[in-house]
Amino acid sequence: MTPYFELESIFKRWSAVRSASAMLGWDNATMMPENSGDARGEQLSALADICHEIITQPKLGDLFAKAEAQNNTLNDWQTANLHEMKRCWQHATAVPADLVTAISNATHESELFWRKARKENNFKAFLPYQEKVLKLTRESAAAKASALNLSPYDALLDQYDAGTTSAMIDSIFDDLAIFLPDFIAKVTALQDKQPAPVEVSGPFPAATQKMLGRMMMEKLGFDFTRGRLDESTHPFCGGVPGDIRLTTRYNEEDFLSGFFGVMHETGHALYEMGLPAQWRNQPVGEARGMAFHESQSLLVEMQLTMNKDFLSYVVPLMREAFKVSGPEWTPDNIYRLVTRVKPSLIRVDADEATYPAHVILRYRLEKQMIAGTLEVKDLPDAWAAQMQQLLGITPDTDANGCMQDIHWPDGAFGYFPTYTLGAMTAAQLMATIQTALPDLGASLRKGEFRPLFEWLGVHVHSLGSKYSSPDLLKHATGKTLDASVYKKHLEQRYLS
Amino acid sequence: MTPYFELESIFKRWSAVRSASAMLGWDNATMMPENSGDARGEQLSALADICHEIITQPKLGDLFAKAEAQNNTLNDWQTANLHEMKRCWQHATAVPADLVTAISNATHESELFWRKARKENNFKAFLPYQEKVLKLTRESAAAKASALNLSPYDALLDQYDAGTTSAMIDSIFDDLAIFLPDFIAKVTALQDKQPAPVEVSGPFPAATQKMLGRMMMEKLGFDFTRGRLDESTHPFCGGVPGDIRLTTRYNEEDFLSGFFGVMHETGHALYEMGLPAQWRNQPVGEARGMAFHESQSLLVEMQLTMNKDFLSYVVPLMREAFKVSGPEWTPDNIYRLVTRVKPSLIRVDADEATYPAHVILRYRLEKQMIAGTLEVKDLPDAWAAQMQQLLGITPDTDANGCMQDIHWPDGAFGYFPTYTLGAMTAAQLMATIQTALPDLGASLRKGEFRPLFEWLGVHVHSLGSKYSSPDLLKHATGKTLDASVYKKHLEQRYLS
Repeated sequence: MTPYFELESIFKRWSAVRSASAMLGWDNATMMPENSGDARGEQLSALADICHEIITQPKLGDLFAKAEAQNNTLNDWQTANLHEMKRCWQHATAVPADLVTAISNATHESELFWRKARKENNFKAFLPYQEKVLKLTRESAAAKASALNLSPYDALLDQYDAGTTSAMIDSIFDDLAIFLPDFIAKVTALQDKQPAPVEVSGPFPAATQKMLGRMMMEKLGFDFTRGRLDESTHPFCGGVPGDIRLTTRYNEEDFLSGFFGVMHETGHALYEMGLPAQWRNQPVGEARGMAFHESQSLLVEMQLTMNKDFLSYVVPLMREAFKVSGPEWTPDNIYRLVTRVKPSLIRVDADEATYPAHVILRYRLEKQMIAGTLEVKDLPDAWAAQMQQLLGITPDTDANGCMQDIHWPDGAFGYFPTYTLGAMTAAQLMATIQTALPDLGASLRKGEFRPLFEWLGVHVHSLGSKYSSPDLLKHATGKTLDASVYKKHLEQRYLS
Repeated sequence: MTPYFELESIFKRWSAVRSASAMLGWDNATMMPENSGDARGEQLSALADICHEIITQPKLGDLFAKAEAQNNTLNDWQTANLHEMKRCWQHATAVPADLVTAISNATHESELFWRKARKENNFKAFLPYQEKVLKLTRESAAAKASALNLSPYDALLDQYDAGTTSAMIDSIFDDLAIFLPDFIAKVTALQDKQPAPVEVSGPFPAATQKMLGRMMMEKLGFDFTRGRLDESTHPFCGGVPGDIRLTTRYNEEDFLSGFFGVMHETGHALYEMGLPAQWRNQPVGEARGMAFHESQSLLVEMQLTMNKDFLSYVVPLMREAFKVSGPEWTPDNIYRLVTRVKPSLIRVDADEATYPAHVILRYRLEKQMIAGTLEVKDLPDAWAAQMQQLLGITPDTDANGCMQDIHWPDGAFGYFPTYTLGAMTAAQLMATIQTALPDLGASLRKGEFRPLFEWLGVHVHSLGSKYSSPDLLKHATGKTLDASVYKKHLEQRYLS
């Protein structure tokens, strides 16, 4: 066997064990009895150790050197796969084992304590836990930076979005940070002048919500012979590309947010289902990072579902399913309901227009924390200042401020920017699609989604991780991420 | 770390990976979408390979030698665990890797072809597949025999029921084979003289069946915070001791067989749930083989549920749940319905009294096949002769004869006797329990099952694999397996 194919066979096993863990992770959230966590913990911990051993076995360094020396024998997919295998290996081996364990223990402890401290709004008590997590994350970032020849923050970012750098993000987010405050002020002023949209009210039976959700998933192309829809406290798209496990939850008083949630997760699912089947057990066959993953969910949620053509198709189906009528159940009223803009404190509840401000704030602060120019103890003041600058509001409590998200307690520094990079990527993809498919609006009004997802299949899904994030976007849209496209999308939707 | 504790840590990982596979196996049968088998196949195959590598790693031989030399430092549980670890290791290492692979391929192929050939009643076409599986199984048996210092058939038996030998089974089964034909004739003559019991008829709504099943599971002590009840085509008790996944299926035309099925699986489940928690991830903490496992399911199904005291408690609950009444819904009539005896061709449909004859037939034939004194091509004739001798009937087709079970196509020689050993063990345990708990009948009439399961917990469940099968039975009942106890049980139930 050549060194390259020996690497493929090692990563095939690595992929299979990670897949097994993914299935068990889905089971945890959906099926597992409440007291079986100890048994599951032993299973997942053994599988995680085995994964780590597979990817850190000493012979890999030699195999990579030999495979790279023979890379003229590889085709373009194999070359990309070699690159991705090596990236995974570098991330796994850069950090010493004792630091990996220390981070795992510290984040586990910190996450547990964060739940309590947030409930009690006690930032001071939580401070030492967050400081410890930050200290260890900085050590890990330094180790990865040295292995990957990146800055520490970019090395963390590379875990979630390969090829994107903070220099690129800085220029885009600085542009948005200037644009947003004025834009939000204009939108809210405009919306305040108009009559308020009419609220829809329930109850919305869970069984009907489920039927509608499943029906739309199928319409969009979700293959129920290779996937399921279940319920969990926190909706997610889990499983593996050949066996997708999507979850949602049903609130009988609130239909719209649940429906948009299912559509969001379906975007993730269709990406996974469309990944190249022949590379399913190799790194190059995986989704291209979190920004692109979020772009696919937000393309469905924000570009497709929150779209007048789409709503003119789906709102009549909702009326029929729930046997409702009245002025609130018009496509136009529903559109106005879901496009309301109002600055608020909590990121996960934010609307499309204010959401980027939440992300920019977090990105700026975490970059400073990793650089060592912002201490955790100064986080509440820094948070308040950014919040005021970007959204014109100030958190009433730390629980509603810098303690609201699990990411930092969990050590997931470098993750936040992918949300807004995803939203911008979705807008840029949709702008290209609208040119490529001039009849898209007519298709959506008829409930025909195949052209849209065929385009995404060819230009995004089927390419897996063959290209870096910036190159994949350039390949699909002709240019790298362009803030002007996103700003134009926001202006067209909210100001025209 | 001492050699013993190093072995424990290796077997802990082995256990965790097998547990992960068990959970995925449950998912296969209950939750997995129909086309996701390929992804699951890769996961299970990787985990199986990893398990095999863990237990065949070269250093184990040395660790066993050292641990055995230091066994004066071990307590009795550790000594038993060392013995069980070594037994698992011997089974895993006795057979050369290429033979393991050949068996896996041959049984996979044979099982697929068997489904087709059975449907078409084509024994001749199936013959070469079964011959190949038998040939490879005999090679495997010879290898295990040499490693374990047992006869080839006993080495196969040891996989399913450690400590039991064919010499022990021969004496018991020969005794039963003499007893059964005359006994069955007497029972059928007696039942023919009595008026027939009244059939119960549905429909029995699945939701009500489920409610009743869950209620009885809970009554018996099934812990739903560490287990679930779902549906699958073939009911089974899956999962792991800390997370039991029991399945059933609902036939709305037939309630009783489904109800007895749930009770049967609950017996398996309570055994798993009662295994010693502190040894959960070690071989000594596992159930004591298939005969004891079947004894626990049959104790619940045949000794507890098919019992007049129990039925006098549960039949009124059934009447209430299904809102039914009439002469068929009396405990006595239900008892007579479920204790009808009639020789028939198919083992899985057989009643309590004729079932052992099916097993003795298979045991005798498979022992000859492993010994090389019966060729597969002569199986139909040998089957017919045994069937005639033991049950007085002859199969109309091979599909209803020697091709009816999956065990031989699957290479599971040595498994069949555990069914009847289990039934006999159940009867022997119950006879002891009735002496230990003189008020048992009164308890059952009131739906109080705690004394029964507390007894089983102390004398069977909590002992895991600390003793061999024969020793565990002796520990619990004061004697090894005694055919006279089982015969007495049958005579009391069917002739008195």
